[in-house]
Amino acid sequence: MFFASDNGSAVPPEVMAALARANEGYAMPYGADAIMDGVREKVRAVFEAPEAAVYLVATGTTANSLALASFCPPWATVFCHTHAHIAEDECGAPEFYTGGAKLTLVPGEHGKMTPEALAAVIGRSGGSVHNVQRGMLSLTNITEAGTLYSAGEIAALCKVAKAAGLPCHLDGARFANAIVASGATPAEMTWKAGIDVVSFGGTKNGLLGVEAVVIFDPEKAWEFELRRKRAGHLFSKHRYLSAQMDAYLTDDLWLRLARQANAAGTRLAEGLAQAGAELLHPVPANLMFAALPRAAHGRARDGGALYYLMGPAEGPADEPVPARFVTSWSTTEQDVDQFLGFIRG
Amino acid sequence: MFFASDNGSAVPPEVMAALARANEGYAMPYGADAIMDGVREKVRAVFEAPEAAVYLVATGTTANSLALASFCPPWATVFCHTHAHIAEDECGAPEFYTGGAKLTLVPGEHGKMTPEALAAVIGRSGGSVHNVQRGMLSLTNITEAGTLYSAGEIAALCKVAKAAGLPCHLDGARFANAIVASGATPAEMTWKAGIDVVSFGGTKNGLLGVEAVVIFDPEKAWEFELRRKRAGHLFSKHRYLSAQMDAYLTDDLWLRLARQANAAGTRLAEGLAQAGAELLHPVPANLMFAALPRAAHGRARDGGALYYLMGPAEGPADEPVPARFVTSWSTTEQDVDQFLGFIRG
Amino acid sequence: MFFASDNGSAVPPEVMAALARANEGYAMPYGADAIMDGVREKVRAVFEAPEAAVYLVATGTTANSLALASFCPPWATVFCHTHAHIAEDECGAPEFYTGGAKLTLVPGEHGKMTPEALAAVIGRSGGSVHNVQRGMLSLTNITEAGTLYSAGEIAALCKVAKAAGLPCHLDGARFANAIVASGATPAEMTWKAGIDVVSFGGTKNGLLGVEAVVIFDPEKAWEFELRRKRAGHLFSKHRYLSAQMDAYLTDDLWLRLARQANAAGTRLAEGLAQAGAELLHPVPANLMFAALPRAAHGRARDGGALYYLMGPAEGPADEPVPARFVTSWSTTEQDVDQFLGFIRG
Amino acid sequence: MFFASDNGSAVPPEVMAALARANEGYAMPYGADAIMDGVREKVRAVFEAPEAAVYLVATGTTANSLALASFCPPWATVFCHTHAHIAEDECGAPEFYTGGAKLTLVPGEHGKMTPEALAAVIGRSGGSVHNVQRGMLSLTNITEAGTLYSAGEIAALCKVAKAAGLPCHLDGARFANAIVASGATPAEMTWKAGIDVVSFGGTKNGLLGVEAVVIFDPEKAWEFELRRKRAGHLFSKHRYLSAQMDAYLTDDLWLRLARQANAAGTRLAEGLAQAGAELLHPVPANLMFAALPRAAHGRARDGGALYYLMGPAEGPADEPVPARFVTSWSTTEQDVDQFLGFIRG
Repeated sequence: MFFASDNGSAVPPEVMAALARANEGYAMPYGADAIMDGVREKVRAVFEAPEAAVYLVATGTTANSLALASFCPPWATVFCHTHAHIAEDECGAPEFYTGGAKLTLVPGEHGKMTPEALAAVIGRSGGSVHNVQRGMLSLTNITEAGTLYSAGEIAALCKVAKAAGLPCHLDGARFANAIVASGATPAEMTWKAGIDVVSFGGTKNGLLGVEAVVIFDPEKAWEFELRRKRAGHLFSKHRYLSAQMDAYLTDDLWLRLARQANAAGTRLAEGLAQAGAELLHPVPANLMFAALPRAAHGRARDGGALYYLMGPAEGPADEPVPARFVTSWSTTEQDVDQFLGFIRG
Repeated sequence: MFFASDNGSAVPPEVMAALARANEGYAMPYGADAIMDGVREKVRAVFEAPEAAVYLVATGTTANSLALASFCPPWATVFCHTHAHIAEDECGAPEFYTGGAKLTLVPGEHGKMTPEALAAVIGRSGGSVHNVQRGMLSLTNITEAGTLYSAGEIAALCKVAKAAGLPCHLDGARFANAIVASGATPAEMTWKAGIDVVSFGGTKNGLLGVEAVVIFDPEKAWEFELRRKRAGHLFSKHRYLSAQMDAYLTDDLWLRLARQANAAGTRLAEGLAQAGAELLHPVPANLMFAALPRAAHGRARDGGALYYLMGPAEGPADEPVPARFVTSWSTTEQDVDQFLGFIRG
Repeated sequence: MFFASDNGSAVPPEVMAALARANEGYAMPYGADAIMDGVREKVRAVFEAPEAAVYLVATGTTANSLALASFCPPWATVFCHTHAHIAEDECGAPEFYTGGAKLTLVPGEHGKMTPEALAAVIGRSGGSVHNVQRGMLSLTNITEAGTLYSAGEIAALCKVAKAAGLPCHLDGARFANAIVASGATPAEMTWKAGIDVVSFGGTKNGLLGVEAVVIFDPEKAWEFELRRKRAGHLFSKHRYLSAQMDAYLTDDLWLRLARQANAAGTRLAEGLAQAGAELLHPVPANLMFAALPRAAHGRARDGGALYYLMGPAEGPADEPVPARFVTSWSTTEQDVDQFLGFIRG
Repeated sequence: MFFASDNGSAVPPEVMAALARANEGYAMPYGADAIMDGVREKVRAVFEAPEAAVYLVATGTTANSLALASFCPPWATVFCHTHAHIAEDECGAPEFYTGGAKLTLVPGEHGKMTPEALAAVIGRSGGSVHNVQRGMLSLTNITEAGTLYSAGEIAALCKVAKAAGLPCHLDGARFANAIVASGATPAEMTWKAGIDVVSFGGTKNGLLGVEAVVIFDPEKAWEFELRRKRAGHLFSKHRYLSAQMDAYLTDDLWLRLARQANAAGTRLAEGLAQAGAELLHPVPANLMFAALPRAAHGRARDGGALYYLMGPAEGPADEPVPARFVTSWSTTEQDVDQFLGFIRG
């Protein structure tokens, strides 16, 4: 009953098998391995973007930070949601990588910003040499609240940004979950909607540690490569990253894993609601927040379930405690049902 | 016949098996996995340093840069050899991580600096608020020329640095090869000699991509953790880094792999010398530079041998061409002998 | 009728005379001039801080940024008011100087934060290696809204910060105006209240361009000197900065100038209120915001008055337009009365 | 007898008079003052560059660092002479401003590099993603050794840089002295020779503290403005900078001051040579290095002469001591002759 994060999961056998296959003989280092050639083509095919520049890094924070640094100068600001991962969970990595750019927070319910809110915040920013300049937009899908932007919503937000001349980034740490939940194609969710650069997540969805950065305009490619090397994120034995991403994109493994995670999420969300826990946001995918009756939490915790509380562990018996749950490709129906049994009491 | 780099090698079965074993069930992320607890203790035991702070990162450039940034302020300089990896091969990563510190180059034959040369360069640096301040010393062992500092030589250099109040870093990308070549213990090669922080390499010596940073004074530990996170180098599925390092340190695998690499290096160096190629530096380990007769190079290249030339590929027939060769744990005697056959013609 | 800013004013004759006196013969550069020795002592006397480190720079942005960088590491955040100058008007200088620290905004009416609001924001920040750490507090007095923190209010805010282990900075671009308005001593307004470092402004209050940075704990002094030099803010012909500050602190010129500015401010504020303009915040000093009847604004503008509008210049006749007014040491009663005449119509 | 530096001098009356004239009434801040409009045109006329972007800052380190940062990305290197001011005397300001670019040192006699040496160093740099990239060229005229590049020599060096695609910077802290010494026009010494950006010094040649940055391609102008503001180098009471530069460029004051300094330099150099001191480099301007007989140094020191020794003050009586001398616009013939009297004994 592990719901603490999708990054606590193990790795599916297809990925381990790919690693083992890659572990034969010698390979050219630093991304010149033959497997990477195939990965590049597979990513381009997934995104219907034959010119895209494709790079692998090992963590989501890196993918985001390098993407932002490549598009936002040090004297500008990144517009993002108040609770964006780049704002709250990366220990200032965007600031480090950009050389001191700002993040300007756009509020919004359920982890999402509206075009109106974005336009208002952009409108109040910049203006003269005394102000940090308008830099770029960064969206997250699945959001930090577990909710989903449709491809149309992303397009509407990018339109606001583009009207101000701003490039657009998508933090897709849970991109596969968003694709499965939305039914949109990767192209519709990204460049067709106005996104310039994507952090295409693999780690949370079943890899050991690989994310792809996809840059639709290859003009930024060389700068990105230099930034990646300079940050220590160019792997010498790159084939082991390539092999993971290759397996991920083979036979739609990435979509299958996300479907499993999302199905477990739905089962869990529905069960929680039926058991009297209030879901704090819509639950289209594998990440959810619920207000648990305190007694139910006590039973689950004693039963060995793992998840994060978003408020104090102790409190009045009649005051529910907010908690975060994440399912993954490896969450089983038994895990969910056993947990719901504790919740129902 | 792959002698281009030790990072072109595959990974020994013990490491792949450890990955497979780690791939069971759920694990706490970000270094809180149980395997890491064991790794920490094993590294401390190897270095006879029960208080040391131990962290894993995935690349050598990262290990070096984070180590330097933790000890050298932005307005200071790192004294290192003219051809140090941090100076020549990391695309300015030390400058990026330190916030713009300098590297001050210390010349010296065979990739090594002498205490006298170091003292002279330190003596000419710093001085007033107008000058970049004296920051720290960084040594590399095995050096970029393939040569070895003995533990005593390292102690003599650290003594010069300490006399100027400077902390000392050891870039141990090939630390295992240095230990095997020198007969010194890890403690003798590091803290007993005055080293404050080590980049303890694993990748070149058989891992997929793991280096440990060992900081002997744990006071710097929290700052290091923040710098690592902020740079995107804290892995969520950290267990897969832990597992590699755990296997590396189990049953002295790390020393066995280095012995194999060094033995292959010795066989190659001796064969080259006997075949009339001039060795440009002493060859105590697995990295060497030789001036190849041009005809020999032609035969080896046509035979499929891979290695880097350090000069122009074309030139007068009677002018040898300098080349770099690296052996690894996976280099076989057959590889070496086949190659030497081409060289001898 | 110049109310656009206190930095549009000329310089009083005492300061020009001091420049002329300093312009004799040779002087040691870089702060080793004899005048600076006196300045150091005068600043220490003003602040009753005989150990304080005292440095001169030429702009307020520099004073603030160097102060913040000296106390806040790159992975931490500066708590400041939503409309602080460091947040809104310095083009990201604090981020540049700190190496990418964050500013975390604390809301509050009339340009001031309350201890409760500060405690709440601090309480939500930091927490783990994933979060930007708590760094320091920065207050501004006179605030950006023209309002005043009493020495007691500053002490209450610093108490909250100190409880979280945070050093405290005071942006005193209008420090003299705050001292005059509050009746507190410089010591009461700063170190006795818990402030660790002050930007002690001179430029807005009558100098050509000099601010002092006063650091009460001299342990940070050498780091500050290196940061200043490294940023290009150490003046070779430093005597011309020293001379300005010397004149400023001689015979309480700084307080006299601020009294003149504040008196003009009071006269202007009272006149505006009597003429039917709504003052948007209390006006204890020389900076104010008022909602001007649009017709009154038209008359004043046509009459040649200069000030900034905080909203669109055009709008419905019955909708007042918010505007900012700043008086200075050189504002005359005639200036104010002539302007009020236009406002009254 | 002050020969320690040209920055120990006072300011000529024309400059003080201009300050006094500027000190009337109100002026728009931040470079929008009317005097600056004239300065812009005067600088463009001096350089025969009607499109050039012209900015004022207060120190030479700032002028250099902002110029370098505007043309050299963080992952590249600035080629400069081993003893360039940017390399030795700015406490790492170029590294701070560029976000961690490198300086690659080009050796050469008498403070000058040759095209061959520059080409060789450029040829060894860059190459792959692992290396810091080739960034730009920075030259200094008058050099740190007091010597002069002719306009033709600068053109030859820029040609080497341009062949590698590199922009070119001229550190003209003593630009006026170089113009006077060479007989070249400012245009010939800069853009006609291939220079893209100049630090046009005023401080050492008689201003209180003003340098102009002249960027010949105005495309970089806005970025420069943002970098200047972000570094705290945009002055609110900018008119006092404008006034200095205005006076400097009126009636060729800048050339007259440099002629005086250079004439004093020549008188001093010739006198030193006649008195048996060895001049260590040619002396075309106002900065020189000489090996002084130790007894002569003792007499001069006891007589009150001020200058810097470049070696230990104490030593064998028959071993001359190297010393640096700088004359300025305010050095008198009496100063020189009195000093030479002590030297001759």
